[in-house]
Order: sequence, then structure tokens, then C-alpha cells
Amino acid sequence: MPGGYDGAVTIYSPDGHLLQVEYAQEAVRKGSTVVGLRTKDCIVLGVEKKAADTLQIERTARKIRKLDDHLIITFAGLTADARILVNRARSEAQSHRLNFERPATVEYITRYLAKLKQNYTQSNGRRPFGVSCLIGGFDADGQPHLYQTEPSGIYYEWSANTTGRLGKTMREYLEKNASDMASSPDDATAVKHVVRALFTATALNANFYELAVLKYQQPLEMVSPAVVAHLVQVIKQENAEEEAAKQKQRGKS
Amino acid sequence: MPGGYDGAVTIYSPDGHLLQVEYAQEAVRKGSTVVGLRTKDCIVLGVEKKAADTLQIERTARKIRKLDDHLIITFAGLTADARILVNRARSEAQSHRLNFERPATVEYITRYLAKLKQNYTQSNGRRPFGVSCLIGGFDADGQPHLYQTEPSGIYYEWSANTTGRLGKTMREYLEKNASDMASSPDDATAVKHVVRALFTATALNANFYELAVLKYQQPLEMVSPAVVAHLVQVIKQENAEEEAAKQKQRGKS
Amino acid sequence: MPGGYDGAVTIYSPDGHLLQVEYAQEAVRKGSTVVGLRTKDCIVLGVEKKAADTLQIERTARKIRKLDDHLIITFAGLTADARILVNRARSEAQSHRLNFERPATVEYITRYLAKLKQNYTQSNGRRPFGVSCLIGGFDADGQPHLYQTEPSGIYYEWSANTTGRLGKTMREYLEKNASDMASSPDDATAVKHVVRALFTATALNANFYELAVLKYQQPLEMVSPAVVAHLVQVIKQENAEEEAAKQKQRGKS
Amino acid sequence: MPGGYDGAVTIYSPDGHLLQVEYAQEAVRKGSTVVGLRTKDCIVLGVEKKAADTLQIERTARKIRKLDDHLIITFAGLTADARILVNRARSEAQSHRLNFERPATVEYITRYLAKLKQNYTQSNGRRPFGVSCLIGGFDADGQPHLYQTEPSGIYYEWSANTTGRLGKTMREYLEKNASDMASSPDDATAVKHVVRALFTATALNANFYELAVLKYQQPLEMVSPAVVAHLVQVIKQENAEEEAAKQKQRGKS
Amino acid sequence: MPGGYDGAVTIYSPDGHLLQVEYAQEAVRKGSTVVGLRTKDCIVLGVEKKAADTLQIERTARKIRKLDDHLIITFAGLTADARILVNRARSEAQSHRLNFERPATVEYITRYLAKLKQNYTQSNGRRPFGVSCLIGGFDADGQPHLYQTEPSGIYYEWSANTTGRLGKTMREYLEKNASDMASSPDDATAVKHVVRALFTATALNANFYELAVLKYQQPLEMVSPAVVAHLVQVIKQENAEEEAAKQKQRGKS
Amino acid sequence: MPGGYDGAVTIYSPDGHLLQVEYAQEAVRKGSTVVGLRTKDCIVLGVEKKAADTLQIERTARKIRKLDDHLIITFAGLTADARILVNRARSEAQSHRLNFERPATVEYITRYLAKLKQNYTQSNGRRPFGVSCLIGGFDADGQPHLYQTEPSGIYYEWSANTTGRLGKTMREYLEKNASDMASSPDDATAVKHVVRALFTATALNANFYELAVLKYQQPLEMVSPAVVAHLVQVIKQENAEEEAAKQKQRGKS
Amino acid sequence: MPGGYDGAVTIYSPDGHLLQVEYAQEAVRKGSTVVGLRTKDCIVLGVEKKAADTLQIERTARKIRKLDDHLIITFAGLTADARILVNRARSEAQSHRLNFERPATVEYITRYLAKLKQNYTQSNGRRPFGVSCLIGGFDADGQPHLYQTEPSGIYYEWSANTTGRLGKTMREYLEKNASDMASSPDDATAVKHVVRALFTATALNANFYELAVLKYQQPLEMVSPAVVAHLVQVIKQENAEEEAAKQKQRGKS
Repeated sequence: MPGGYDGAVTIYSPDGHLLQVEYAQEAVRKGSTVVGLRTKDCIVLGVEKKAADTLQIERTARKIRKLDDHLIITFAGLTADARILVNRARSEAQSHRLNFERPATVEYITRYLAKLKQNYTQSNGRRPFGVSCLIGGFDADGQPHLYQTEPSGIYYEWSANTTGRLGKTMREYLEKNASDMASSPDDATAVKHVVRALFTATALNANFYELAVLKYQQPLEMVSPAVVAHLVQVIKQENAEEEAAKQKQRGKS
Repeated sequence: MPGGYDGAVTIYSPDGHLLQVEYAQEAVRKGSTVVGLRTKDCIVLGVEKKAADTLQIERTARKIRKLDDHLIITFAGLTADARILVNRARSEAQSHRLNFERPATVEYITRYLAKLKQNYTQSNGRRPFGVSCLIGGFDADGQPHLYQTEPSGIYYEWSANTTGRLGKTMREYLEKNASDMASSPDDATAVKHVVRALFTATALNANFYELAVLKYQQPLEMVSPAVVAHLVQVIKQENAEEEAAKQKQRGKS
Repeated sequence: MPGGYDGAVTIYSPDGHLLQVEYAQEAVRKGSTVVGLRTKDCIVLGVEKKAADTLQIERTARKIRKLDDHLIITFAGLTADARILVNRARSEAQSHRLNFERPATVEYITRYLAKLKQNYTQSNGRRPFGVSCLIGGFDADGQPHLYQTEPSGIYYEWSANTTGRLGKTMREYLEKNASDMASSPDDATAVKHVVRALFTATALNANFYELAVLKYQQPLEMVSPAVVAHLVQVIKQENAEEEAAKQKQRGKS
Repeated sequence: MPGGYDGAVTIYSPDGHLLQVEYAQEAVRKGSTVVGLRTKDCIVLGVEKKAADTLQIERTARKIRKLDDHLIITFAGLTADARILVNRARSEAQSHRLNFERPATVEYITRYLAKLKQNYTQSNGRRPFGVSCLIGGFDADGQPHLYQTEPSGIYYEWSANTTGRLGKTMREYLEKNASDMASSPDDATAVKHVVRALFTATALNANFYELAVLKYQQPLEMVSPAVVAHLVQVIKQENAEEEAAKQKQRGKS
Repeated sequence: MPGGYDGAVTIYSPDGHLLQVEYAQEAVRKGSTVVGLRTKDCIVLGVEKKAADTLQIERTARKIRKLDDHLIITFAGLTADARILVNRARSEAQSHRLNFERPATVEYITRYLAKLKQNYTQSNGRRPFGVSCLIGGFDADGQPHLYQTEPSGIYYEWSANTTGRLGKTMREYLEKNASDMASSPDDATAVKHVVRALFTATALNANFYELAVLKYQQPLEMVSPAVVAHLVQVIKQENAEEEAAKQKQRGKS
Repeated sequence: MPGGYDGAVTIYSPDGHLLQVEYAQEAVRKGSTVVGLRTKDCIVLGVEKKAADTLQIERTARKIRKLDDHLIITFAGLTADARILVNRARSEAQSHRLNFERPATVEYITRYLAKLKQNYTQSNGRRPFGVSCLIGGFDADGQPHLYQTEPSGIYYEWSANTTGRLGKTMREYLEKNASDMASSPDDATAVKHVVRALFTATALNANFYELAVLKYQQPLEMVSPAVVAHLVQVIKQENAEEEAAKQKQRGKS
Repeated sequence: MPGGYDGAVTIYSPDGHLLQVEYAQEAVRKGSTVVGLRTKDCIVLGVEKKAADTLQIERTARKIRKLDDHLIITFAGLTADARILVNRARSEAQSHRLNFERPATVEYITRYLAKLKQNYTQSNGRRPFGVSCLIGGFDADGQPHLYQTEPSGIYYEWSANTTGRLGKTMREYLEKNASDMASSPDDATAVKHVVRALFTATALNANFYELAVLKYQQPLEMVSPAVVAHLVQVIKQENAEEEAAKQKQRGKS
């Protein structure tokens, strides 16, 4: 039905829904699977990528981006929209440095993105951004933070979270392993948790994973494809062993 | 019916209704249950929260917010819209301090929010805010005030009120206990009244409650989850006893 | 029929009607019953109120408002719209004092409101205000005036008038008692007339009345609920006696 | 049919009509009957009024208005629209006095109103004014002029004219008595002509007439209701006599 | 069909037509018949007028207007629109005198009007002007020029032309007598040609003609109604004689 | 279908077409046939004209226009639109002279027109220009150039080209004689080629041709109607002879 | 279906798609086949062209354009849209030189174009650009880069890529020969690869190819048609031989 409640202007349907916002959320749900994790001293972001195109230069296809030395972002949904948000956030982070002579906090930048998104849901002649963002980083006190924003402009802080196309068992994994993940003794363990989480959602298609680790006052470190590939192998084996153990258990009972 | 009376512009239906405003009100009715109480020396706000997500950092999911040292707000409806209103109100409160060299009164900030909301119901190319707010605080004379605003821009002052998804017996509870609530001798009694009110509306689902107490020239105090949990237990027991007593009464007669 | 003559823009229907204005008038007809009376030395405004909510602070729910020391207003229709009009009129009254160094006349403020309302019926992207106002007050020469404005922007001066949801016998009462009302020797008589008028329209539901009396160079006086309640009792009794007398008369004939 | 040729924007229908302008003209045709007359030394305006409301203050319900000391106006159609036009014309007349240090001519003000009206038929997001005006007055040379403007913005000068709801025999009367009217030796004769003209159109309903006489460099004079009532009586009697004479005539033949 | 190719915005229909422009042209075709003639030393404009209203002051109903001392205009179509164009052209002519210290050429003013008209066919939220203009006048070198503009903004220069409601035999007359007309030895002959042309189109209805003659550096001269009436009589007689001669001719053959 | 893909805003249809642009192209296809030719030292433009109106002054009906001393233009499509483009281009050419102190190149002006046209296909509330232009002229180095622009804003340079209503055999003629045309030894030969090309498309209706020749640093020369008429005669005869020769050939075989 | 999800404003369909963007992509898919290749020291762009028009001046029909001395671009889709993008990019490149006193990087210009395109997918009253671009060039360090942008505003870097109407076997060819292409020892080999790639997609229609080679700090070199024609011949022969060899192979097995 053209020009109805889900039409050009973001308006309420009779039962109080903003349909254009919900459809934008749908665009997010069609996006890549994304996972973020905050441990006590680092931020790990991971994202599933389309089957690598041998002709594509990997750097420009990266979905994990730096907003500032201490801030990283990844996203699920419309890539072109996301780039606008990334650029706006980068420029706001710079402007914050200039005006206040100190870096923006993770929440400041998150709030900036959330406000921008809400505005696009209430002003005529604009559509909502079809993007959900995971923003991670460190505040001046060295504390890591991980935030997520939605197309509606809602945002929350998380110890770990996921967005985009979601595998069935993914959230279960995250919640079951929440405390274990948050207290990962080193990066390697944290990265493995993130890969394992991605793997639960995307195991059936041969996609690749992009992962990055950010630590306090250290440069952003991309996890090398070789390491990722190795982890996938290890996890597959562990899963197989676990399955075999269960099988055996069942055989006994 | 697309583009009709309930369409992009907030216009009158033939029987004199503004449907977009009523649909926004519907979005409020889908929101969390919220309760506010004004006693002779404090403001208590309480709000039902979705089942706690173990991964979510509780601070950013808070629905009770400070607008200024002497002003707090909570809301039912669209969270992203509410954040815009909260930010606008905060900035208006700051600007009031700068321009008039004294804090804004509770009614001043309420009127500011109400006017903003009405404007969005009459200007083309905007949708009404899908938010109902409870605003509490203290004026310079130390008197507590509690106001509520609707998506239409209507506002009233209350000794106690509720909004959002409403339980059947909630308003009954509020009205029956009105004078008792308003004259609560201490915070604890006031908080218990608020929890009991929330409990009438939401007893069947395992949601949590967020509560805050504001006193004159004192910092905002969030009620700890432990205290809330304890109160819920106490209330359950009291309800059970009361029910038993009634049962007994009925048995006699 | 969406987007037709009664659509987003206030346009003419083929038979020369402005339907959005007529629908706004319908919103007025759904509003509270309102009565205004001008005697030789005072203005009395009366308005029916919804069943009092025991939790609501009465002051903010008042429907009779001061625009300036010498000007009062009440209204039927959309409360949030009315507040905008009240605020605009108040600020215009202040600005008149500053620019002309004397208070605005009652007609000046009425014309200001009427023009504002007409403008909203002719400009695109706005809906008419769903409010009918009764404006009363005194000019510099001590003469009382009572005006009424409609959503269309029409206004007239009246010795007494009513708007909002109208009882059947109300206008009859007003017209029959016109000269008697206008020449009320004291406030009490005038107030009783207004209560009686309200009573004709609203006797069947248990609503309350809010009344105010404004005299030249005196502060606005709200009639106390006790006085109102007493008057209602007196009127009920008088009506009963009158009815009995009629009955008797009929018996005889 | 929504949004068609007679829709929100004033556009051409396939046969070259501007329907919104024609519908506005329809609103005029639903208005009060209005008559204007220019004699060699005065302007007489007359207008039918709704049955007098005993509560209404007659002054504000007047439909004959002064634009300046030497200019008067009356109108048929939407009263709220007309007030806007009257205010705009008044303020233009004042501004002309200030800028040119002499009063505006009757045609200057007429042209101003006509241009304003045409503009509302060609700009998007506006509806035409639903008002036809009769504007009378004196130029600096002491010559009286009478103009009429239509919703389209068309205007002409007339020795006598009428607009609004038109009685069948009215225009006949005006044309038959044109030269007699224009050369009325005194005001009384001119006023009687105008009443007689109004009477032809409105004899069946018990409406009242409002009349005004403007002479060169003299204050505007409203004809008193008593005089009007007397004239109506005289005219009724004359009509009856005339009818009787005709009847007799017919009897003979 | 609402909002289609012939809707609020002037857009192309699938076969490349601008329907709103064509409908505006239709409004022209419903207008009065207008004729313009350029001889070697004068411009004659003639226009059919509605049956004279005995009450109307003839001057304001004139359809032939002066734009400047050396420029005249007449038009067919919407009178209110035409007045806007006339005013704009007059003010442009004045402004040209001020800026360039010499009068505008006839083509300059024509181009100005044509550009204004085209603009209204391409900008959103405007309708085309429903007017076709004949513009005549003299350039600084004493040469007469006659131009015509259409609602689309097209314009051409003509030795003689006509617009508005067109009689069947009119254009035939113009073309047959083109050279004769252009070389009229005196005004009287030129005026007679124009009346004859108007007469071919409008002979059946009893309308009147308005005619004007403009000569180089001489004041605009309106042809008196008596002269026009006389000419009509002469032409009728000549036509009758011609018809009789033809009849006779046919009788012979 | 109103408001669809071919509606007010130029938008994509599902198969990626911009229909308003294609309809504007249709308006071009309904326009006059136009031919342009660039030889090694001159530009020849030719255009079919409607049957000459004996009353029309030929100069203002000219379709070949000078943009600057070294630039000429002709067009097919909506004449009023074309005039706007011609005026804009002229003023741009003047402004180029002032800003850069040298004449604009042919491509500069072409690009200016093309950009203007594209802009009207992408901005809301505008329709595309319904005009295709042929622009010819000389750059500072004395080289002739011939460009064509479309309603979409596309432009190319050509040695010879045609637009507007196209005869079947026209393009065939142009392509067959391309090299011969480009190397025409003198103007006369080039003009004859252009007339012959026009003749192939328009031979059946009795229209006239307007032709112009522009040479480096020489004034624009319009080809006289007599010369054109003579050429048409010659070509007719040559065609007849050629046909006879073919006939004979066929007879033999 | 008019005004629906694929209507004037780019909005979400219920399943989260932006249809106007997808339709613009469709316009790209109707465009010419385009190939870009980055070797270790040069950029080669190739594009299929419509059958050459003998009258068209080849330079202005070129689809490979210089943005700056070190930047080239080609595109598939709407030519008029592409020209706007090319002009905007050129002017941005100039402005970068002025502001930063060094040439823009390839990615800077790509990002500029991508942002422009995204903006046209989110702002009301604009349609997306119907163009996909391949941008190649050298950064200050002498490194070659090749980027592609889509109508949505998405962009990536590639070692080789293609867009527009795609032949079935084209992408296969590109991927199979990726490493071979990237390491082409000389321009000739790289050009041959590009022709071969184009040939796979377009072999059946007799279109021509336009090719260009850009090397570090050297002028842009267009590959001559003769060379292209020769390459096509060579490739045809090689394909034939290869086919024959395969045939033979099959015969054996």
C-alpha cells in the first residue's frame, strides 16, 4: 500500500509503530553478522564477510574502522549509510579534540551517532539510516567501553553484543559464556570467543571473518587471516570432539 | 488507508480527532510501566524494565535520568525519542541557569517539554514524539513537584501518577492509597508504595524494577536491586497473607 | 477519502466549505462545556471539569487562566493547543505593555488570537487550532468585555456566551435570562447564573465546575469548590420546587 | 476525488477552469447579501445580518468596517478571512499615509486587496480568500468611488453593486433604478434604495439590515436600527399598495 | 484523474505534452476576442467586451491598458492574472527608465513578460498564467511593434494578430486583408479593419467593442463608443450589400 | 497512472528508466526538424519552420539564434523552454567574457547548457527542459565546432547532426554524405547539403526552411528565402532526374 | 503502483530494501560494459562503445575521462548523470590542490564521489545517480589504485573489476587471470587482458572498445583504434585455435 503508514514520512501506524524504522531494522537483519566483546583490558570486534573476491583490495572492504586512536566501530546493514556515519563520527571526534583539547569519550561519540539516527526518524524527507553500529574504545581513565546503536537511535552499553543476521545459537553462546568472556586473561582467548560466537551463526556458509583488537594506548591490531583460519580449524575440532563426547554420553545412558 | 486522516500530516478526522497523536499515545501504551510519587519531602520514580540482559551494562539502560541537580525524569514509549527530549530538557535547564542565574522550576522544564511536543503535532513534516514523561524535582523553596506530559503536549501536576502499559489494578491502588502515599513518613515507605504499585501491574512477568529517590539539595539516589528484590519478596508475602486473611474471612461468613 | 477536500491542506470543497476548519470545530464540540458572563462590573467564567482525579494537583488542571492582570481566558477543545494559544497571548500582552506602556485592551488580545487562528486555516502544512476561547477582561476605562474566538478565527463580543459540548436547554437559559444576568447586582448572583447555565448542560454526569470572577483592578478570584457545591445543591432544590409548582399547576388545570 | 483539479493547489482543469477559485466564489454565494451604492456625494453600504443574538455585542458583529477616515468596506463570505483582509487593508492605508503623506485613493486600496487575493490563487500551499468585498470612499478631490473585488482578484468600479446570496429580483431592481439611485438628492433617499434592494433579496427571512453612510470629510454614520425598521415598514406598505394597484389594474383589463 | 500528468506540477505526459500549459491556453480560448494591428504609423488594439453592465464604471473594466507612455497591452483569459502581469510589466518599464535612462523597447517588455510566464510553467507549486497578451508600442526610432505572448511563454512579433475566443472567419479576414491593413493610410481605416475583424468573430452576440489607437509620441486615444457603434452600423450595411451583390451574382449564374 | 514513475519527480522506473526525461525527449520528437553541419571553415544550421504566417514578423519567429559573435544555436522542442536556455547561455557567454577576458569556447557553453538540463532531471519540483539544442561556433583558434545537447543533459560533438521530427531517409542521407559534407569546398555546397537533408525529412508538407551560415570572425549570415526556394527547386529537379535515371536502369535490367 | 516503496522518496520497503537505489543499479546494468585493471605500474581502463556514429566527433563521446593529471575515470549507466559526477570530482580535485597544495589521493576522490552518491539516496526530492564509476590513478608515492563506486555510495578498491552490462564469462575470466593480469610485465599485455575481458562479454555485437593507459607521472594515453582492432583479431584467432585444440582433445578422449 503506497504512501501509507510505512510511507515517505516516518509516521505512526494505528497501533503505535514507526514502520520505516522497523524496515530499516530489517535492512540491518539482512546485514553481516557482527560481534563485539569488552574484556577487562581490550575491545575485540569481529564481523563475518562475504566470500572474498580475489580482485578486491581487502583494505577498502574492511568493516572494522577506526574513528580515532582510541575508538573503533563496526556495523551491520547498508554499507553506504554506514560510511556516512563513520565519516560524521570521525569528524566529530576530531572536532571534540580541537574544542575540548581531549579525546571524546566512547559514550560521547555513541550519543552523537544515536542522535543523528533519531533525527532521521522524525524529520520529513529523510529515511532512517539502515545501520546498527558497535562502537568500542577507551576513555581517558583507561576503561574499555562497548556500545551499540540501532536505526531508531536507541543505544546501550554492553559487555558483549551482536547484531546483523543472527545465528540461532549465537546469543545463547554469548550469554552462557558472558562472565568467561569478560574476564578473558589475554587477547587470544577473547579473540577465540568472538570467532566461536561468529561460528555458531555462520558455520554453514564459507564466509570469512574479520577481527580486530584494540588495547589502551596501543595501535589497532587486525587479526591476521591465517590466525583466524587456524582458530576456525581448532574450533571445528573442539566442536567435533565435544559432539563425540556427547554421543558417547548418550550411548551410555 | 494511506495518506488519510491518520497520515503524514497531523490533521483532524471528520469527528475532530488528531489520529497521529492518538497513535503516538498508543506507542506510549506499549511502553514500560512507570510510576511517580511525590511525598512531602521527596520524589520517588519507579519503572519496570525488560528482563535484564546479562550482557548489557546497566547504567546506559537506565530509564530514570537526571535533568539537573534538582530535576529527574522517566518515561514510557519510544526510547530514542525520549533521549532527544531528555537532551533538550537538560540543555534548556543549563541555559536557564546561565540566563537567569538560578535553576529552572519543575514547571518551567515541564512547560518547555510540553510546548516542544505540541509543536510536533501541528507542524507539517514532523511526527509527534511517542513519549509520555514523568518529571519530578524541587523548586527553590524546597517544595517537591511531580508533572506528567503526554505526546499531545498536555501536562498536569500530580501527587502520584503512572503511565505506559497499565495493569488493571494499578490506578485503583494509587487512588486508594493516595493520601497514605503522599504523607509517607520516610523514603522507605514511599519506595515500598511505588514497588507495590508497579507490582500490581506487572506481577505476572518476571521483569525488574528501577527506582530512584530525590530529596531536596541531596544527590539522586538509585534504589539498589537488592533492596528492590527484598521489597518484592516482602510484598509477595504480605499479599499472600492478606489473601489468606480474606479467604478465612470468607470461610467464616 | 484520503487527501481530499478534508485533507492535509485546508482547501475548499466544491460547495465552498473548509472542512478541516469544520472538523476542528467538531473537536471543540467534544470539549468541556464553558460559560462566560459579563455583568456591569465583573466577568464570570465557568467551565465543567472531568471527574476530579484525586492524584492530580488541581492548579495545573485549571482551565481558567490569567493572560494579564486584567485579562482572563477559558477554552473548549484540545488542551495542548489551548496552552499554546494562552502562552502566545500572554507573551503578546507583555509585549504590548512594553511597546505601548499600557495594558492591551480585551479586543486587542482577542484580535491577536483570532488572527493567529485564521492564519492556521490558510497556510499549508498547518492544521487549524482545535480550540474555542472565551476571553474576558477590563479596558483602561474600567469597562468589562467578553469575547469568543472560533477555530476559523471568527470572533465576536458577547454579554454572555457558551461553547464546547452544549446541553439542550443551555442556550435557552442564557437567552431567557440575558438581561437579568447582565444586570446582576453582585458577583454571587452572577456566579449562580453561570452555575445554573452549566447545570442545564451537564446535570446528568457527575462533573465538577470551575468558576472564576474578575473585577476591575482586583485580583482574579477563583470560586471555592465548597461554594460551587453549595450552589449546585441550592439550584437542585430550586429546580425541584419549580418542577413541583409546575406539576401542581398542571394538576389544577 | 482527492487531489484532483479542485485539490490542494489551485490548478487548471482540462477546460481551463480554476476550481478552487470557483469554490471560494461559492463560499461568497453562501454569505450575507451585501449592497453598495455611490451617489454624487455619498457612499451607502448595506448588509443583511443573521437573526440578532440577544447576547452578542453588536459592535463586534458589524460587517461594515472603516479602513481609514475616508474608506469603508463590507463583504460577503468567510468572516475570518474577511477580517484578515480588513486588517491588511487598514495597515496598508496607514502605511500609505506615512510613506506618501496623504491618504490612499479608493482604487489604491482596492488594487492592494485584489493583488493579495490573486496571489493566493497562484501560490502553492495557500487557498484563495473566500471573500468578496465592496470598498467605498472618497479620493482627495472629494469624488466618491465604489469598488468590488472577487476571490479571484478581479475588481471593478461600480455606481452600485451587490454580492453574496442574491435574491432573484435584486439585480433587476438595481439596474432599473440605477440612474435614480446615483442621483439621489439626499442620504435618506439613497438609504431607502439600499434597503429596498436588500429587501428584494431577503424578504422571506426575518434578518436584519446593517447600513452605513459615508460623506466627504465627515465621520462614518451607521443608520440606526430604528430607522431601518421604519424603512422596512414603509417599503412593505408601498409594496402592498403597488401590488394592490397592479391587482386593480389587472381586474380592469 | 487526480495528480496525474495534468496535476499540480507542470510535468510531461507520455507523449511529451505539458497539460497544465494547454489547459491554461484553454482558459485563454474562453476569454474575450482580442485583435491587434500595426500599421506603418500606429498601433490599434480592439477587444470584445461583455454586455455592458449599466452599474459598472467603464474605466476600471477597460481591457486595454497603458504600460508606459509608449506601450499598450490587452489580453484574453483570466482578468485577475492579467492584472498581475500588467502591474509587473509597468513596474519593469519604470525600472528600465530609471536604470537605463531611456524607455524600454517593445520587445524588451515582451521578453520580460514571456520569461515570467515560462517560469510559472517549470517551477513547482505554481500554475501557468491563464493569459495571452497583445503588446503594442513604439521604439525610440519611432517604429511601431506588435507582440503576442502565450501562457507557455512563447512570443512572436506580428503585423496583426488575434487571440481569445476566435470566430470562424476572423483569421481568414486578417490574412486576406493583411497588406491592406498594414498600409492603412489613416487611423480611421485601421480602426475600421479592427472592428470588422472583431465583428466576424462576435457578430452573433450583442457584445461591445473597446478600441484604442496609439501613435508615436502622442497620448493613447480610446475610440469613443459612439464611433464604434457607428462603425458597426456601417459594416453591417456593407456586409448586407455585399451579400445582396453575391446573391444577385448567384441569381445570374 | 498518476504520481507513478513518470510523475512529479523524475525518478527511476523498476527497469532503470527516467520516464519524465523520455517524455521530454518525446516533446523534442514533436518539434521541428533541425540540421547542423560543420565544414572545415563554417557552421551551417538549418531548421524546418511551420507554414509561414503572413501576419507574423519573421525576425521574432527565427529559430536560429546568436549566443555571442562566434556562437549560434538552434533547437527542436518547446519554444518557450528554448528561449530560457538561449537567454541563460547568452548571459553565461557575456559573463565568461567579463570574467576571463576572452570568449567562451563552444564546448564551454555546451557544457553549461547540458549541466543546466541535467540538473532539471534530478532536482525535485522541476521538469526537464523539453528541448534539444544544436550549438555551433568557433574557438579562439578558428576551429569550427558543432555540439548537440539532449533533455537529459547528454551532449556530444558532431561533424553533422539532426534532431526533432525525423524523416525516414534523413539520417541515411547524412551518413552517406558525411565526408562529402564535411569537406564542402564553399558555403553554397554546404547549404545545399543541409537543404537536401531537411528535404528528405519534410518533403511532404509545404514547410519552409530557415538557414544560417557562420564563418570565423564574420557576422552571422541568414540564407535568404529566395536562395532557399531556388535550392528546393534545384533539388526537386535533381531528385526527379535521379529517379528517372533509376527507373531507366530498372527498365534495362 | 504510484508513490509506493519505489516512489519519489528513497524509502525502505517492508523487507528492508531501498528500491530506488536498486532501480538505479538497474540503469547501470543497462549501461556499457566497463573494465578496469591495476598492474604494478599502470592503470588500464576499457569500455565498450555503441556502434560508432560516423558523424560524431569521437573526443566528446569518450567515456574515459581525466579527473586530474594523475586520476582517470570511466563509468556505466546514465551519461548525463556521469558528467555531473565527473565535473564535481574534477572541481574537487582542483580545490584539493589549492587547499592542500598537493594532488588528491585516489581514495580521497573516490570517497568524495561515494558520499555525493549516498547523499542522493537519503535526501528527499533527489533521485540516486544512475552511474557506477571506475576510478583509477596514482598516489604521491607512485602506487596505482583502482576503485569502484555504486549508485548506493558503496565503494571498494580492486586490482581489477568490471561493471555495466556483464557478459556471462567475463567475471570468470577476470578471476581466473587475476594474478596474471596484476603482474603484467608491460602495458601491451595489460591492454590485451582488458580487451579479452571486454570481448568475453560483448563478442556478439559489433561494438567498439575505448581503452586508456595511465602511468605514473606520464600523460594519459588513449589506445588507438587500430591497435584495438588488431588485438581483437589476434584474440579471435587465439580463441579459435584454443577451441580447435579443445575439440581435438575431446576427439581423443
